[in-house]
Formats: sequence, structure tokens, C-alpha cells
Amino acid sequence: MLQDVLAYLDKQHDSAVNRMIDLLKIPSVSTDSSYTKDVRKAASWVNTHLQEAGLHSEIHETDRHPIVLATNADAPKDAPHILYYGHYDVQPPDPLEKWDSPPFEPTIKDNAVVARGSSDDKGQVCCILEALMAWKKVTGKIPVRVTVIIEGEEECGSGSLHSFVEKHKDKLNANVCVVSDTTMWNQDTVAITYGLRGLLYFDIKLHGPDRDLHSGMYGGILANPCNELTRILGKLFDDDHRVTIPGYYDNVQPVTAEEQQQWDKLDFDEMDDCLTPVGVTQPFGEAGYTTLQRRWARPACDINGLYGGYGGEGAKTVIPSFAGAKVSFRLAAGQCPERIAELFEKWLHSHDLHGCRWELTNFGGAVPVAVSQNSPYMTAASKAIEKSSGKEPVLIREGATIPVVGQFKEDLNLDSLLIGFGLIDDRIHSPNEKFNLDCFRLGYRTHAALIAEFANLQWWT
Amino acid sequence: MLQDVLAYLDKQHDSAVNRMIDLLKIPSVSTDSSYTKDVRKAASWVNTHLQEAGLHSEIHETDRHPIVLATNADAPKDAPHILYYGHYDVQPPDPLEKWDSPPFEPTIKDNAVVARGSSDDKGQVCCILEALMAWKKVTGKIPVRVTVIIEGEEECGSGSLHSFVEKHKDKLNANVCVVSDTTMWNQDTVAITYGLRGLLYFDIKLHGPDRDLHSGMYGGILANPCNELTRILGKLFDDDHRVTIPGYYDNVQPVTAEEQQQWDKLDFDEMDDCLTPVGVTQPFGEAGYTTLQRRWARPACDINGLYGGYGGEGAKTVIPSFAGAKVSFRLAAGQCPERIAELFEKWLHSHDLHGCRWELTNFGGAVPVAVSQNSPYMTAASKAIEKSSGKEPVLIREGATIPVVGQFKEDLNLDSLLIGFGLIDDRIHSPNEKFNLDCFRLGYRTHAALIAEFANLQWWT
Repeated sequence: MLQDVLAYLDKQHDSAVNRMIDLLKIPSVSTDSSYTKDVRKAASWVNTHLQEAGLHSEIHETDRHPIVLATNADAPKDAPHILYYGHYDVQPPDPLEKWDSPPFEPTIKDNAVVARGSSDDKGQVCCILEALMAWKKVTGKIPVRVTVIIEGEEECGSGSLHSFVEKHKDKLNANVCVVSDTTMWNQDTVAITYGLRGLLYFDIKLHGPDRDLHSGMYGGILANPCNELTRILGKLFDDDHRVTIPGYYDNVQPVTAEEQQQWDKLDFDEMDDCLTPVGVTQPFGEAGYTTLQRRWARPACDINGLYGGYGGEGAKTVIPSFAGAKVSFRLAAGQCPERIAELFEKWLHSHDLHGCRWELTNFGGAVPVAVSQNSPYMTAASKAIEKSSGKEPVLIREGATIPVVGQFKEDLNLDSLLIGFGLIDDRIHSPNEKFNLDCFRLGYRTHAALIAEFANLQWWT
Repeated sequence: MLQDVLAYLDKQHDSAVNRMIDLLKIPSVSTDSSYTKDVRKAASWVNTHLQEAGLHSEIHETDRHPIVLATNADAPKDAPHILYYGHYDVQPPDPLEKWDSPPFEPTIKDNAVVARGSSDDKGQVCCILEALMAWKKVTGKIPVRVTVIIEGEEECGSGSLHSFVEKHKDKLNANVCVVSDTTMWNQDTVAITYGLRGLLYFDIKLHGPDRDLHSGMYGGILANPCNELTRILGKLFDDDHRVTIPGYYDNVQPVTAEEQQQWDKLDFDEMDDCLTPVGVTQPFGEAGYTTLQRRWARPACDINGLYGGYGGEGAKTVIPSFAGAKVSFRLAAGQCPERIAELFEKWLHSHDLHGCRWELTNFGGAVPVAVSQNSPYMTAASKAIEKSSGKEPVLIREGATIPVVGQFKEDLNLDSLLIGFGLIDDRIHSPNEKFNLDCFRLGYRTHAALIAEFANLQWWT
């Protein structure tokens, strides 16, 4: 039966591309309220296509953007239950002037579709939709129990998802979650991602004088918040580029010898495969670790933004009344966001502020994720990928965070299979985001094959 | 004769206030090209009133805003030659919502006129104009040689002044320059400012990856420009809050024992007179110096702005391709802007940038100014102030920079007398800028008395 489904999918590739392009035309930017109607339009598009796959699909209202929830009521009751997760919202497209073609006018270039959201995550959502629709079309029904959640707030913090999951917990008692929002190892090799870093994000604002001051009259006689902020942030790292916050590394899990052996086989070149493509000329980071270890298994601390005083063209001689920074931590397996938040706040307060004061905003975080490599669904996924791509997948971790994965683990005690079809150079969150059409093809084929493997699985044994 | 002039000035105080109000109604904002016509209107107003004082006055075109230049051709050839300098342009009025009355609808409140430019510098320019007009009206002619330059670009960098001075050098061979753009020591005490700090202003921009990157995928494996910028700027000061740039303090002139004695008599309270009014709770700065020493005689280094990455509301997990800062130096007597620029650039390049690169923009600077306290015109000014105010002036320095003073010294080898009538709380460059009417009265009386003292002076001896 899988062969029939794959043959059907092959035949209707062009229509699948056109469907994806339809979805990409909708500017569903979730962070910007001027796009609210478009976000809703994208939800509606997804809902319609889930219904085409024979699912009972509904748009659920939330405090912000709707969540699409679909199930196949006609599935065999004793079949494995798969929860699919994806998001139909996209990042803002700016800076617009850096796009070679308009972000919401999808354009085929070099065998890829160029559009905001193509790789993250609409193209990958379409891979799931195409697989489900093909099974329905070719065989009349999807042979596993399926629940699909496609949300519209992933790019603005998934604020509505937790209460939605709590409310619909009874429908979400799946055996495994499948998330397609990651990348392939390379264009020939599908990856199953079994580890993700967590995240903790702060806005730290240092207040000084009660108004902006003239730097001639006040320069040198009072604590300038810009000076003090950089003085303190300048102490975040030691000479080995390790974070100096006491206790920061306490619970970081070391890489096992078995994992390291797998990674050594990956044939990863830090310059060619990672740094050179983004214009970086030398590796950098915590001393004593390789680039892959730093990215996957070591925590990072990044200042994501600096603000305060005058940042425009030319000169303005101001001592600003405040200065601030966005500071985030990518947490390695073993680290807990709440604990690191506590340590960071304590560290910030441990410095002499010379009369300035902190205003700290913790935007919360996400736990790091580590999924067992030896589960039956991991094995099933490997088989499916071998069938769809002709090649064994590699097992990798990822440096980024997919908060929903940790959340499903915490709220539903559900492990996730992360199988994505993006490429590392897809420019997600950047101008000229793209999604390769061969990856798209591999994506829907793999999801179709996954369904067959899951259906064969004696899940409950 | 001075008594007649002063009596006349007393009688026509209300008309003088009305004239000042007329000028304040013109929104001559020089930085914003939408005000270009108003800037010209203010130049024309000044030109007309200089003509009323019997001067030959003309509006001179420049590449940007006109300069008004006036001379009294009928002055005795062997009298001292005084160059007056002021500016008729003003700072932008925003934030408009913070003004209690509209910035260009002058309003009398608490014995002060509230309007943009009232203290900086239109009210002070009017003090000079009133004195000149009164001498002309009462005695038929001004008893000294007078040249007046009132420019329209002081608030946007005085870009046209240098070439104008070069072009008109032959007319500007004055004995001394009188600048009225500073403050009194307090409402009872006129100050002669004999020292100004210089200025050097840089934009330093650190470039990293060739695009903005996702901090999950790239966090911890490459040099983040925000991290690196704060690391380097964090080293600008040592634990004694001294600038660490090698050679920075080399040529700073120490405060003489005589000066220190004068300063000790000033009855200056660093908290009450300076820090508390701007919401600062503790003195801060270079160890081993008092607040007055730090402000007047020690160089300062301030970060006037920080930029790079995400500075908006909420969170964005970006590693930006660049980060930057505005860094300025207030130079103490003895320091040279070119030399400090060289040392700073060298210091910036001395740090390991881990593959990042600097883009440095030097916005140039202004030399610090120190005028002899023992010149005959300083003595004449002291006498005049005693006559007009009934009290000896104090001799002070100022932490701020008036670039034209250094420029006149360099271009014309001309020393300046800085006698201003602003008050420290006049909110110049801020909403609700004001100019006290008693200060206005004292201002025109003092300028009238100065003319008498200069006329009495055997300048050439």
C-alpha cells in the first residue's frame, strides 16, 4: 500500500508545490497585530486541507491566534496514536529591502521556493498534509490514529498552547509526537534529532539618572548606565570563553562516549559546513570543546541586543537615563531554566551598581530535551527514512530550541520524534528564506512511509 | 555715560522682553530641514536688530544656514576691537508632549520666559543686542570697535563657521571674543568661565557574521558582536574608574594650587547642587578627585549609546551581524583630540577580535580651552560685572565644550571671555527650557558695562 501512496505522491508533485505556494502567499506574521486577519486566513487554509485528508478538523479560538486541531475519528481503535505538531505562523519579513523577491510572492529559484515561512515551517507542515491527504486518497483512510495540532503563535512564544493542551488533554493521549520543524543533516541525509537545547531569555535594563543628561556637564561625575552595563556584561565570560556565573555549568550532562563515536562519523567540517557559509572566519567558543559539542551539548550565552542612549546617525552627547540588553541562554541537557535564571539574577545583583538599579524581565524559557535513541518509534522512523530516502538517517542533536517538545514532555509525558527537511542554509528568520523542492518531495514521502511503519508497529508490546 | 545707558536699559526692560519673545516665536531648528525658512527668518530678525544698533550688518549665505555678520564702521580706529559670538538656531523641541506650554509660544512663568532657545542661546544673544542698541540710542555710537557673528548652525555642528572665518579673517582681527552661551554660578553670582573641556566623538561598530543568525543554531560557536563589543568596552575602565587606554592621561594639566583655592571657596555641594537634582544618589568617577575636579579638570569617557541586534519589546533570538556604540571623550586641558583618537583606535585594535572587524567613524572633536586669568580683559570683565551685579564674579571652568571658542583660538589666535547668564536648571536641550528674567536684566546690564570697561581700557599697552 505504501508503494501506491508513494507513486501517487510522485505523480502529483506539481500540485503539491502549488498548494504550498498558496499557503506561502498568506502573510501570517504572528508577532505583528496588523497581520491578524492573515494569520486567521492561514489557519483556515490549514483547516480546509486537514479536512481534505478526511480528518475532523476545527479552528479553536485562543486569546491570540487560533489553533487548528484535527483527528481521524475513523481510525482503528487499537492502532498507534500519532500527534503531529507544526505551526502556520511566520517571522516578520523585514528587512524587506534585502529580499531578492517579495517575501509573500513565492518564487522558484535554483530548485527551491523562496518565501517567508517556506522552510520554517509552512513547507514542512505541507509535507505532513500531503502525506495524510495521499493516504486518504489512495487507501480511503489513514491506517493509524492521528491528531494534528497546527498553531499560529510559534514565532511569538506559543503563549496559548499550554492552556490549550491542558484543556484538550484527553484527545492528546498519543504514543508519540512527530514534529517537522528541523533540518536534514545534509541534502542527501535525513536526520532524526534526539536532543535540543533549552532557552532562557532576559531583558536586563539598568537605570541611572532620572533623565537624559548632557555629557559635557555630567560626564565623569556620575555612573553612566551605558558604561556600567558594558562593564558588567564584559565580565560574563572568562578568558576561556566560559560563562562566569557561579554554578552555571553544574548540572550539564557530559557527552557519552557512544554519542561522541556517532558524532565523529558525521564527517562534519566546522568551517565548510557551518562557519564559512555565514561569513565567519574562525571557530570560537568555550575552550576544550569542538564546534559540534559547543552547538549541541554545551550551553551558550548570547547578548541578542543592546540598547540605550543614541543609536542613530552622527553624534549626540547624551548620558542616557538607562541602558539595556537582551540576554539569552541556550541550555544544555541537565540545565534547568528556573535555576539558571536564579543564578543569573544573583550574578547581576552581585556587582556594585554605583547607585544604578536593575529592572529585570524574565521572558521564561524552555527545558532542554533529550529523547532515548532506543525506542521502538525511533526504530520505526529509521526504517521509514531508509525506505523514503534510500539511506539510513543520522541521529543528531540540535543547538536550537523547540519549546513545544519540552512542553509536550512536561504536560503530556510525550516524547517527540524530530524529523525535519530544512537545510542549514535555508535562511530561516532571514531575508530570502527558501525551501528546497527535493527536500519537500523527500519530506512528504518520508511522512507517508512513517505512517506505514507506525501502522505495522506492535506499539503496545 | 554708562549710568545713562543703564538707566535707559532699566526703563525699557518690558520692551526688551517683548523683543526677546518675538525672536523666541521663530522655530529656528537648524538640524531639521523642514524648518529652513524659519531659520532664515531668525537670521533676518537678528540682522534687523543689529542694524538698529547702528551696525553695518549683513546676512551671509553658506552651504546650509546663513551667518549674520555686523561691524560698526564709525568706531574710533584705535579703540579695542571686540568680537561677539552667539547663535540664533535652537535644538529640536521634541518630545513635544513633555512641554507644559508650546515650545514656540513663549510663556512667562515664575519670572522666566519658557520657550525653546530661551536660555540657549536666543535670550543671551538678546542681552548683547540690547546692550549695543542702548549704547547707540543713548550716546549716538558704540565706543569700541565691534564685530558680531551670530550663526545658525551651532546646534548642528557649526559646519559653515570655519570656512566663513577663514574667508573673513581680515575683519575678525579682534582683541578679544565675548561669548554669552554659558551659565551663572548661581542666581546671585555671575561667572567668568576660563576653561572648557574638549570633545572627541566616535562611532565604533563591530562586524561579525555576514548576516543575522539564529542564536540556537549558532550560539556558542562563533564570536557574537554584542558579546565581543561589551567584552571590549568592559575593559575601558579599571577598578579606580580610570580609563585604561595607555597614554590617555599623559598630558592632562593638573589643577594648580591657586585654582584649587578658588574652587574651595565656591561653596559647592556635589549632592545638592549637582547630583540630587537629576536623581543620582551617589557621587562616582575617577578615584582621588572631587566632583568639581572631575567635571572641570579631568577627562571623561562616556558611552553615549549602544546599538545592535534586537532592542524592541519582548524577545528575539538573534545573533546580530554587528553591534556598535557611540563613545565620546571630554578632554581635559592638555589633551589633544587627534592624539586621543589615535590612542583609542590603537586600543580598540589591540584586542583579539576573534575574526570580527571594526568600522570606526571619528566625528572629530574640539580642543579643550584654557584662558589666562590674568589678562587685562579678564580684569575689565570682572570690574564690569561688579558694576552691573554689585558682586564680584567667580572664575570657573565648565565640563562642556563650546567648539567655537577653541576654533577662534586656532583660526584667529583669539582668546574668548565666556560670560553667560543661564542658570544650571534652565533645561537647555530639554522640554520647558526657560530663561530667568532677572538673569536677562543682569545680562544686558553686564554687556553694557563691559563695553564701558573695554572703552576705558588701554588695550594696546
